[in-house]
Amino acid sequence: METLRRVADLRRVLAAFRARGETLGLVPTMGALHAGHMALVARAKETCARVVVSIFVNPAQFGPNEDLGGYPRDEAGDTRKLAAAGVDVVYAPPVAEMYGEGFSTSVRVTGLTEGLCGAFRPVHFEGVATVVTKLLLQALPDVAFFGEKDYQQLRVVERLVRDLDIPVRIEGVATVREADGLALSSRNRYLSEPERCIAPLLYRTLCSAAEGLKRAKGAPEIAAALEKAKRDLLAGGFSSVDYFELRDAETLAPVARIGRPARLLAAARLGATRLIDNVPVPA
Amino acid sequence: METLRRVADLRRVLAAFRARGETLGLVPTMGALHAGHMALVARAKETCARVVVSIFVNPAQFGPNEDLGGYPRDEAGDTRKLAAAGVDVVYAPPVAEMYGEGFSTSVRVTGLTEGLCGAFRPVHFEGVATVVTKLLLQALPDVAFFGEKDYQQLRVVERLVRDLDIPVRIEGVATVREADGLALSSRNRYLSEPERCIAPLLYRTLCSAAEGLKRAKGAPEIAAALEKAKRDLLAGGFSSVDYFELRDAETLAPVARIGRPARLLAAARLGATRLIDNVPVPA
Repeated sequence: METLRRVADLRRVLAAFRARGETLGLVPTMGALHAGHMALVARAKETCARVVVSIFVNPAQFGPNEDLGGYPRDEAGDTRKLAAAGVDVVYAPPVAEMYGEGFSTSVRVTGLTEGLCGAFRPVHFEGVATVVTKLLLQALPDVAFFGEKDYQQLRVVERLVRDLDIPVRIEGVATVREADGLALSSRNRYLSEPERCIAPLLYRTLCSAAEGLKRAKGAPEIAAALEKAKRDLLAGGFSSVDYFELRDAETLAPVARIGRPARLLAAARLGATRLIDNVPVPA
Repeated sequence: METLRRVADLRRVLAAFRARGETLGLVPTMGALHAGHMALVARAKETCARVVVSIFVNPAQFGPNEDLGGYPRDEAGDTRKLAAAGVDVVYAPPVAEMYGEGFSTSVRVTGLTEGLCGAFRPVHFEGVATVVTKLLLQALPDVAFFGEKDYQQLRVVERLVRDLDIPVRIEGVATVREADGLALSSRNRYLSEPERCIAPLLYRTLCSAAEGLKRAKGAPEIAAALEKAKRDLLAGGFSSVDYFELRDAETLAPVARIGRPARLLAAARLGATRLIDNVPVPA
């Protein structure tokens, strides 16, 4: 397994794979890899002859009051895991390689990015859309893999790929959870022991609300179920709830009655840590 | 020569060229082709084994009060010229192929787009950046050709290609002029006969100002030369001058003294028609 830090080196190595007719999978990550990332890698290995994993903590997707400085980094540990998983190339560019002198271009997706996490993290999705576009165009993979845990991000990436005609297939991979249901996240390591005990309530609340919503007749019942879920989270020890919303599974438009596949999405804070999760609500 | 209207067809035909190891040149146009476009085509033919010319009048780069509705269209005439020039593929997608249902992504370049034409056409460069990104990613050419007449656009395209890591080389091609110096433009056909007589004054004024600026010692002399040029245009029959500015040839930053290669750029109106042009001012 090679670790590359320059676009030119990445392209040279990938061109050799391509010249041999080998398909390429890309798994974009910010490092601090856990079993959720490794599920993306495993899916990429199943699907593609060659697998590149990028590790880049993207400053552009963090707001000024967010956790860029403290975001966990462990390239040595990440590299061991990826080598053991049979990854071909780790691409870990420095910030200056991604954002060179005079950098001044951004990719913006309207609509999909406006509610949910977009409402609480104003620069986030423009940063995500720009860096994902760059990574996809640097590697030009056949398939790129994104976790369903970041469901809004997955939909934003699918949208920009379609809109900008990036020649890649995007594949979403199901969220990996701890035994108690907590979605794996690099940010889980911020949780204190008592917070870690409370954290699984987010998923349990999503599941029970999704179950109740299947029988909801219209907007008032949906609104009541969502309000009850928020109260349950606060009663169970969450500090605040950024959102707990039922959205169309594809367009992320608010849902007034169950008819098409929907998704229930939530973000809530446990002390200083912000957790997100989501579950499907079949039509 | 084939005329294609679907991305999927374009990609299929271009993949066959690529499989034979043939290099590909793309000339993006809005049609209404004149000798300026044909110079881009000729340069593409010199440089690349295969040449695609796109014809797409991009609604996204026209403001609400601009000339989208009246913009000249002549696909049959364009096709004859391109066939005679030995072009391999004309790509003329309908608007719905470029901007499908739910389209919501845009590419934005800050800095370079903020003055000059950007100040007078607020949505223009975001529309240009988005459609050029799409065309480049649809065709994935080795080289794409843009005219220096739209100098700010050329710099914006170079910038977004570098920033988004689009794997293409951008080549600027010198402006083609009428015998009297008027830069060729699809919009010249809007000019009445008396306006057509006045029009070459734009280029003559740019040339004489550039000559004078070579000897300018500092900001006050530069400002005086630019003010005189504007007065000359108005005195010569132009209705108004959007801008007449000296900028750094690469960054387009305002220039306070001659030191690095600079560019003198102007936009002025003759009745209802807006003309733009530019000339180099060597260091």
